[in-house]
Parts: sequence; structure tokens; C-alpha cells
Amino acid sequence: MSFEVLQNKIREMKNPTVAGLDARLEYVPPFMVENALAQYGQTRKAAAEAIYQFNCGLMDALSDIVPAVKPQSAYYEMLGWEGMEMLERTIRYAKQKGFFVIADIKRGDIGSTAQAYAESWLGSVKIGETEVPGFDADCVTVNGYMGSDAVKPFVQEAERHDKCLFALVRTSNPSAIELQDMVAGDRLVYDVMAELVDRWGKTSSVDSYQFNRVGAVVGATYPSDLRKLRRVLPHTFLLVPGYGAQGGRADDIACAFDRYGRGAVINSSRGIMCAWQKTGKNGTDFKEAARAAALQMRDDIRSVTPIL
Amino acid sequence: MSFEVLQNKIREMKNPTVAGLDARLEYVPPFMVENALAQYGQTRKAAAEAIYQFNCGLMDALSDIVPAVKPQSAYYEMLGWEGMEMLERTIRYAKQKGFFVIADIKRGDIGSTAQAYAESWLGSVKIGETEVPGFDADCVTVNGYMGSDAVKPFVQEAERHDKCLFALVRTSNPSAIELQDMVAGDRLVYDVMAELVDRWGKTSSVDSYQFNRVGAVVGATYPSDLRKLRRVLPHTFLLVPGYGAQGGRADDIACAFDRYGRGAVINSSRGIMCAWQKTGKNGTDFKEAARAAALQMRDDIRSVTPIL
Repeated sequence: MSFEVLQNKIREMKNPTVAGLDARLEYVPPFMVENALAQYGQTRKAAAEAIYQFNCGLMDALSDIVPAVKPQSAYYEMLGWEGMEMLERTIRYAKQKGFFVIADIKRGDIGSTAQAYAESWLGSVKIGETEVPGFDADCVTVNGYMGSDAVKPFVQEAERHDKCLFALVRTSNPSAIELQDMVAGDRLVYDVMAELVDRWGKTSSVDSYQFNRVGAVVGATYPSDLRKLRRVLPHTFLLVPGYGAQGGRADDIACAFDRYGRGAVINSSRGIMCAWQKTGKNGTDFKEAARAAALQMRDDIRSVTPIL
Repeated sequence: MSFEVLQNKIREMKNPTVAGLDARLEYVPPFMVENALAQYGQTRKAAAEAIYQFNCGLMDALSDIVPAVKPQSAYYEMLGWEGMEMLERTIRYAKQKGFFVIADIKRGDIGSTAQAYAESWLGSVKIGETEVPGFDADCVTVNGYMGSDAVKPFVQEAERHDKCLFALVRTSNPSAIELQDMVAGDRLVYDVMAELVDRWGKTSSVDSYQFNRVGAVVGATYPSDLRKLRRVLPHTFLLVPGYGAQGGRADDIACAFDRYGRGAVINSSRGIMCAWQKTGKNGTDFKEAARAAALQMRDDIRSVTPIL
């Protein structure tokens, strides 16, 4: 699905939030972990089942108030192929519940390998005469350090399947500056990455909101950069991590949106997933706690931007 | 295993080559594909089995002449979790055959997510009281666009398990220059990445060859950059893609080695894997063809460098 579908969901729910599904076993309420260990032993299968039950519970609690989910591949790879199998189930369940699904994979490699990654996550592979889908997300994140070769296959695959992607531009972590803030003439490295994102996007089609298929990841933790990038990339949808746990506040992310409150989605992972850890009920209330945290975040964002 | 183990294998075999295991179904001899489709139908399972048989055949043919293999994660992800399950089997089989295993994953993400990736590929995850390994490679590739946060967890995990990693510095693809060759003062972006690699490496232990645990990916297709980076990174093991199919020749990669012919490993993927496509025997000779191609590559490299 394109960014238009995401934007429509955001407008319906008046909520430009994406909930991260990044569960380590420590983030799952103890009673769910214990059940799974009792059933499957101290195995990856047990961990995968505990996390799957947790993911489904979170999605059940959020599906009418949060438009998108973002599973982070790393947390599934930790459990080997059992984790990847569970990631596929998580993506399928998310789609059934009506979520827009961003697979946070940050892949980046050259030509034929980029093509393989694009087919893996957005497309399908031909086996005999049958087209068989891979992880089948609506959208992915990619890393463009290797240049256009690494990104174009994703753009083409997105175009083919009416999907989309986000490329890293300005990340939210403290050491992002080491490389991304290098000064080259009158530009910074991330400015050049932003120009590349703009160029890649222009090779794709534009939706009714005037967004193309290549979005950008821009952290909430550098608000002035976020403001600048929103201005220079008017046709680029933004994925903004760093709200909440990493220190970004609603004021900081207000400038991610255009004047209609469009064109950006704000991520929260632990803030929603781990909300149960702050209520003193040992996780028995994880759904209610996640829902309350998501509603609070929604209202926090609504206080700084319209969503028209 | 550390780069010392890899260097020792290279010296034993007098061959600084790593064979890529990057199979798309099209690279597998038709008779193997047909067998798998007949047994499992037009499914991901069938594709995974065909590729696994191909990988094992290649490894059987190469294990006494090639010291390392490098499965590229993208080609396994194409087949969803069945592909990842087969990747785990491929890594296990490679270790049984004595190969040093480089998982080419080019992951890069921040803090806690980088930690999850590092545990996935080099370490283990704690489930109950049990430490359960993930993909358990000897070495991985990483992408440092996000800075130190994205790489340090891999360095720590490598140190903990006596393993190692390669960070992208100068990639072999044509569009690598778009970002990596930006001029910032008197340095290029990839020079700064090289300095970061050096800095990360210095936080790890050094082996008896004086190589630390953080290697660098430097493409064969930019030989003068390769020469410069070999000089400025004396304690950094190099992974050099781009030989063969991408245009790099033995003369181009000679400068990847130090004066003893140490400190670098040269990748060939399609050149070895797909050698059967050039013999006109429809793949029935894929093992012999791969072996002959690997021996030719070995001799080609030996003609430009000692291996002491």
C-alpha cells in the first residue's frame, strides 16, 4: 500500500502514530513468558510464541486507534528462523487487523542483492510458475550509504506492487552526527542523502496527497534538522523515530508535518509496548496500558498539529 | 572465530578467497530444481531445499581449497522463514566442513536494536536459564551510516565470543561515489568511515597477526582507494568484493594485501557458483566447474601476491 493509504488511515483516526513491535522477551509480561516456557521449554519456539501472543494482544488493543505498526527485524532475527516465521505471522495478523505495516529492516546492498531484498520484503519470488510472496510488508526502511544502486530496486518493486519505502536520512541516535553531519562545501552529508531521496522519489508515482513512494527517516531528536528537511522535501513522507524513550517531545515533532498535519508518522516502541511496566500490575493489564499510552501520545501530538 | 583463524586457513590453503553463497533459484542446476519441485511442489520449501543441496555440493567441492564462505542474507530472506531456516543449516554445514563463515548481512541500527542484531548473528539470546544461539556466524558485515552506536554492540559481541566483523567503507558498486566520495575538508566521507573503523577496532583485542576484530569492506573496483586504505589501516582486515563479475582483476586487488600477502580476503560469488553455466553440461558438473573456477581464481591471486 502507498503512503496515501497510510495518510487516509491517519486522517480517519486523527492519529499519526506508528507502534513499534520490537519485543525482546523482557518486554513480554511474565505470565505470558511462563506459559510459553511451560508449553515449549526454554527454546526459541517458546520465546517466539510468547512474543507472538504479546504482539497480537497489543494489536488487538490498538487497532482502532493506531493506524500503523512497525516490527523491527532485529528482534525477530534474535530467535533465528523461528523468529522470522513469527515475524511473517505478525505481519499477516497486522494486515488482518487493518494496520499499515512498515518492516523496519534498514537493508542496503548493491544491485542484484538489493533486488533480492526488495523481492523478499515487498515483492515475490518465482518458484516454478508460481509467484510466492516473501515477508510481504506494505513498506520498508532502507539504508542508502551505498548510493542509488542500493535503493532503486526497492523503488521499482514498490512501484510494481503499489508499496513504498523510507530511506535513512537523519537518524535519531547520538552518534548520528559522526558521519551524517560532515560538512561538504555548503552541505552536510545528510543533506546530500536528502537530495538523493528526493531524486529517487521523483522516479516513482505521486499519490493524491502529492507524496511519492520514497519517504525519509528523520529523527525527532534533532528538531531543527527535521524542520529543514520537511521544507526541502515537500513530496517526501517522513518516518520520525525518537519520540518518548529517546527524548523527543511533541513540540520537537510538530515541524515534521505540513500545514495540514500531513506527511509524517511518529514512532513509539517501548513507550507503548512496555507501558505495563509502569502500572504495577505485572503485565496483566498490558493491553489497557498500551492503549492508554497510545491515546496519551495521540493527544500529545494533536496538541501541536492539526490533522486535516 | 577471529581473523587469526581466517588468516591461518588462508595460509594453509595458500588461498585468500571467500566463496559467496548467494543462490537465486536460477543459479541452481536445473536437475536439482526439478527434483525439489517434484518433491515439494512450487513452494518456498522446494526452493530452499534445491538451494541447500546446491550449497552443500559447492561446499563439498571447495572445502579443501577455499577457506571461507559468505552467505548473503538477501538470497535467503527471499524465501521467507524457510529461507532463513535453510541459512541456519547452511551455516552449520559450512562450519562442519571447516569453513570460516561470514554472514553478509550489512545490518546497521541504533543502540538496543544493534545489540539485538549482534546477538542474532554473533551471540545468543537468553530464554529462561538457557543461552540459545541465533544464526551463529563467525563474522558479519555491518553498515555504519548511523555512526558508532550502530557498530559498537557488534564489536562487544565479537569480543565476547571471539568473533569479528567487517564494516562497509568503500563499496564496489558504481553509485558508491554518490555519498562515499563527498569531499569534506581534506577528507572524503569514506575516509572518515575508515577512521571510525580504525577507532572501533582499537577498542577490541589484536591477534597474533596484529589485526583487530573490526575489518573493512573495500571494493576491488576502486584500486587506488584500496591501496590507500590498506596503508592507513594496517591493523584492519579487508573484505574485498568486486573481483570477477563486477570487473575487478587480480592486478586491482594486489594492493589489498600487506607485504606478506596477509590481511585481506577476496570474494567471488557468481564466478564460482555459476561456473557450471559456461561448460555446456546443464549443471551436472556444477561441483567440478566451481572447483575449477576457484582454483583458477586462487592461481590468479597467487600470481600477484605472496601468501606467507
